[in-house]
Amino acid sequence: MDQPQGFEARLAACAAEIEALLERLLSAEPLDGERTRPPRLLAAMRHACLGGGKRLRPFLVVESAALFAVPRARALMAGAALECVHCYSLVHDDLPAMDNDDLRRGRPTVHKAFDEATAVLAGDALLTLAFDVAARPETHPDPAVRLALVTALARAAGVGGMAGGQMLDLAAEGRFGPAAPDAEGVRTLQAMKTGALLRFACRAGALLGGAGPAETEALDRYGAALGEAFQIADDLLDAEGDPAEVGKATGKDAAAGKATLVALLGTGGARARLDALIAAAETALCRFGPAAETLRATARFVAARRH
Amino acid sequence: MDQPQGFEARLAACAAEIEALLERLLSAEPLDGERTRPPRLLAAMRHACLGGGKRLRPFLVVESAALFAVPRARALMAGAALECVHCYSLVHDDLPAMDNDDLRRGRPTVHKAFDEATAVLAGDALLTLAFDVAARPETHPDPAVRLALVTALARAAGVGGMAGGQMLDLAAEGRFGPAAPDAEGVRTLQAMKTGALLRFACRAGALLGGAGPAETEALDRYGAALGEAFQIADDLLDAEGDPAEVGKATGKDAAAGKATLVALLGTGGARARLDALIAAAETALCRFGPAAETLRATARFVAARRH
Repeated sequence: MDQPQGFEARLAACAAEIEALLERLLSAEPLDGERTRPPRLLAAMRHACLGGGKRLRPFLVVESAALFAVPRARALMAGAALECVHCYSLVHDDLPAMDNDDLRRGRPTVHKAFDEATAVLAGDALLTLAFDVAARPETHPDPAVRLALVTALARAAGVGGMAGGQMLDLAAEGRFGPAAPDAEGVRTLQAMKTGALLRFACRAGALLGGAGPAETEALDRYGAALGEAFQIADDLLDAEGDPAEVGKATGKDAAAGKATLVALLGTGGARARLDALIAAAETALCRFGPAAETLRATARFVAARRH
Repeated sequence: MDQPQGFEARLAACAAEIEALLERLLSAEPLDGERTRPPRLLAAMRHACLGGGKRLRPFLVVESAALFAVPRARALMAGAALECVHCYSLVHDDLPAMDNDDLRRGRPTVHKAFDEATAVLAGDALLTLAFDVAARPETHPDPAVRLALVTALARAAGVGGMAGGQMLDLAAEGRFGPAAPDAEGVRTLQAMKTGALLRFACRAGALLGGAGPAETEALDRYGAALGEAFQIADDLLDAEGDPAEVGKATGKDAAAGKATLVALLGTGGARARLDALIAAAETALCRFGPAAETLRATARFVAARRH
């Protein structure tokens, strides 16, 4: 279960490239069709997007695309679009009306560093920017491929994907009346709230690479397993992790009575499910042989709960 | 300055078609790539989008596209995408942290009818849906045209367009420190906050119709003039309108010390500017001859402040 030599270096290199690309995409210069980029709004968008994170989602795009020898610059564009969606969702999820978080990665959340109205607008503008980036010629020369990315990203992020999953999560907290989702309900909400974007990441690699149906299906199975594993690992970390090591408070889910697979299956059951998911993720990659070694390492990395 | 016979009927017919289309787009059935559409979120999106409005923006798409004999169903799709963006912006602008409005068109705003978290998510999901709709084959058979729509819509709605304009508007209220925008500043914020989407509407017609540069430029001039006229007419209505006739409180801008062109130019100056803009909008349409009569009537309709 060791990481192949260089995995951490590959992850870090991709993160640096994404950081540089987002920096460029969030520059002050208005584009064709824009009038001006108001400094306060741009600063809030930059606060939300720049300065850290493992950039796991863009990494998955880059590594999935690498299976098909997609030029790296294209995969980075699609990855940056996806990262804009991820960052917007964090800004809105942190709002007082949602999860009401003051800190994110040790820094003030956008509504704390700025104000609530600015945070709402910064999230809106980042979501909008994501589609702008996905649609640009640098992402892929073929308009049909860019359109497929736009569509897949919209489905992953919207009412039937991430936004819908956040809605289900709020409902599962009992906000709109008594709620006690079963394991299937928890799996659905997690597949939407966190799984959909991770799955899109792998799908994006297949789209950029012109993958055939069997390859696309394989990457989709990998992405789905990885997405579910990601959430279980996160929940296990909360249930068992040492706050000093984890770098944030743990035990929050149990205290809040949150519906997680750990709560429903116990830590033993959840860990068994996690192991099965990682095995499924690795198996899904069989057809790609050694070329998919970094994606396999990514699954182990996710399972090791160090994301 | 009379409306041509049938103008109101054309406007109403288009509104009914857009209502039916939005009804279909916001059905409970999940699409390919969606898992499920959570009922509460879908209900909030439907509350925001269905049940009224003149649908001026879709009408502009339809009538601009009609100059180039674009099949009406395509223009309606692009118009519905645009209406999703417009409706999302109303949901977020009404939030307590933004303009804090309890009522819209005589009905409770989304965060009043549901709750704040649901309103944030409903806006997010509508914005996302807009790009999904613009990217669909029903909008145009040529992927390059759909991509051009996605890009233009993103630029019109994002940091350098509508979202940026809302940011400038909050700043002009003095929220982030003393502010006293001059006429140029007010014009910029209005061109972004309300103008960008109206301008996009006309641009969309040109894109759908494969218009040449001169035709595109003419429609762009029309859209820009119309956008500015729209806002001045709205501000004049607030300054001079009879609340009983207008159907909502008036005099709010002056009471709030809001920076409008009416405040800066006086009602006489603002009315003169409005007349000049409507003349400019009509002039821009010269090259289209009688085919553009409905667009001319739309400009007069906007100026008459009955929108």
